Amino acid sequence: MKDNDRQTLSESFIINNYLKKLNFNKKESFNFENDGAYLSISENKKIVVSNDTIVEGVDFFTNDDADSIANKIICYNLSDISSMGAMPYCFNLSLGLPKKISKKWLRSFSSKILKLQKKYKFFLLGGDIAQTKHIVISATFFGRIASGRIIRRDGAKINDDIWVTGNLGNSFAGLMFKKNIIKTNDSIKKFFIKKYLYPDPCMIGDKLRLIATSAIDISDGFYGDLNKLLQPNNLGANIDVKSIPILPKLKNLILSHKFKINKLLSAGDDYEILFTSDPKKKYLINALSKKNKIKITKIGTIINKKGIYADGKILSLNKKSFQYNF
Amino acid sequence: MKDNDRQTLSESFIINNYLKKLNFNKKESFNFENDGAYLSISENKKIVVSNDTIVEGVDFFTNDDADSIANKIICYNLSDISSMGAMPYCFNLSLGLPKKISKKWLRSFSSKILKLQKKYKFFLLGGDIAQTKHIVISATFFGRIASGRIIRRDGAKINDDIWVTGNLGNSFAGLMFKKNIIKTNDSIKKFFIKKYLYPDPCMIGDKLRLIATSAIDISDGFYGDLNKLLQPNNLGANIDVKSIPILPKLKNLILSHKFKINKLLSAGDDYEILFTSDPKKKYLINALSKKNKIKITKIGTIINKKGIYADGKILSLNKKSFQYNF
Repeated sequence: MKDNDRQTLSESFIINNYLKKLNFNKKESFNFENDGAYLSISENKKIVVSNDTIVEGVDFFTNDDADSIANKIICYNLSDISSMGAMPYCFNLSLGLPKKISKKWLRSFSSKILKLQKKYKFFLLGGDIAQTKHIVISATFFGRIASGRIIRRDGAKINDDIWVTGNLGNSFAGLMFKKNIIKTNDSIKKFFIKKYLYPDPCMIGDKLRLIATSAIDISDGFYGDLNKLLQPNNLGANIDVKSIPILPKLKNLILSHKFKINKLLSAGDDYEILFTSDPKKKYLINALSKKNKIKITKIGTIINKKGIYADGKILSLNKKSFQYNF
Repeated sequence: MKDNDRQTLSESFIINNYLKKLNFNKKESFNFENDGAYLSISENKKIVVSNDTIVEGVDFFTNDDADSIANKIICYNLSDISSMGAMPYCFNLSLGLPKKISKKWLRSFSSKILKLQKKYKFFLLGGDIAQTKHIVISATFFGRIASGRIIRRDGAKINDDIWVTGNLGNSFAGLMFKKNIIKTNDSIKKFFIKKYLYPDPCMIGDKLRLIATSAIDISDGFYGDLNKLLQPNNLGANIDVKSIPILPKLKNLILSHKFKINKLLSAGDDYEILFTSDPKKKYLINALSKKNKIKITKIGTIINKKGIYADGKILSLNKKSFQYNF
């Protein structure tokens, strides 16, 4: 017991063994199988709640600019709110700040948040400030939802189409360039690092509310997050890898062996929305894409057989998704 | 500018200069002059929101037991919810955990939370887990309120009575014993250290909702928190120091010069409720105290003259309340 005491403390182990008993089986908590939850006000009035924490040295580098850190804590949460089919309303901010924080840092951090608040229309409700040894920022977001229906993670059906917004892999490529693991010319490098430092949430979620059968934002890698849509109903997916939206300049880097495509699709904070829907909704989705000028690509189909099949070949699900191990 | 860059970064400086612009003047935020806020659902339906973060090495010692840490994060938030006149409904938990965390720690931490959830009737809605270098725990609590009226901080009127629940100073005395700054016999020491490690929130708030004109929980010291009730309307307070509820065993320590009373009343996490009310409500409050078996003591009066007067002598307001300086 003692020797084993530290071996299996993954996030999901902690949630399943120590935290699940605390939700008293309330349906609002989605049994902790979702990044978000909701407050049930009345039959048709719900407030979506999401929570994300970012930590210096884990989610960003020690010397990253304050506006990038601000961008990340807001994007991570907006993306969760969107994937549930909601629009942001307000948020609570818990700032854990070390002594090194300067006025310049605070100015830059708060200006970026203000900019995003104006863009996505939400306000700061409250929060607190604590002194920490390194930067730890936690935000709890509240989202409005037009009627009672929240997009869930467990609604995918056999034969549903699988769709993804935007382009994948950019942020992970940026991280590899930032870490100097991969090298290339400066303009390419700069382009991808910006994608890593300043992620954009895809706020199409509330328009998918009556279309998607399930949805998730891609925050821990495409394959891992897809798996989270499949697991609740023991389903599988056929993925047409060539159809996965990847920018031509990233495709070039894959072709020149800078990246392995499965690595790109198994890690990284894309903050795009991955969702499933009835094949009959295809025209609706294409119209939505056109109207909102958001790329939405069909990349596969839900199947009645466990596992993710990429071009017919089953994927090994090791390291399929980022998780902390404690 | 550069030399000054680090001088004045108190919590209130950060809030006033960088964060206030982010609340878009929404009344739900109380302009950040309250520990809590609320979500406005409809004219008569509000959800109270509070947020507190505790940090290893600041709010608790590195080797403090997990159940004490759990007790603190829950108590700090319940106390805020109570002071606004609400009852807890559910909460979001953000766990920043270092690698040293063991199964034993998690078992003890979650068991204590479960115990408090059963006692005070609330559930865990959601949250997240992140890897940090030291323990940083943030909780966002949601409270129910019977009708639209939340007890505010800025409602005190001239001639209002000033009341406090329970006994003051125990937790601060416990901290001094824990730090070995003060020494005495073991049973006395143990008693007060327990008060510091396992604070009890005073959940009388929802019963004061229609009685109190203003309220706050004492989390940064009695005098400092009293000052927060006075400042919004430029009021003052006459305090009868002898009437302040202090346990006989703590009074003995004061008499034997272990503690200065003003020190006791200027620091410390009492988690009692300090509130004001119309003198006509005196009998109601005494009846409430009797019925609920909660000590509630009248300790002074609101006056039309700025400052806190303890037995007629104005208090110096230096170090009146705990605040981080960054």
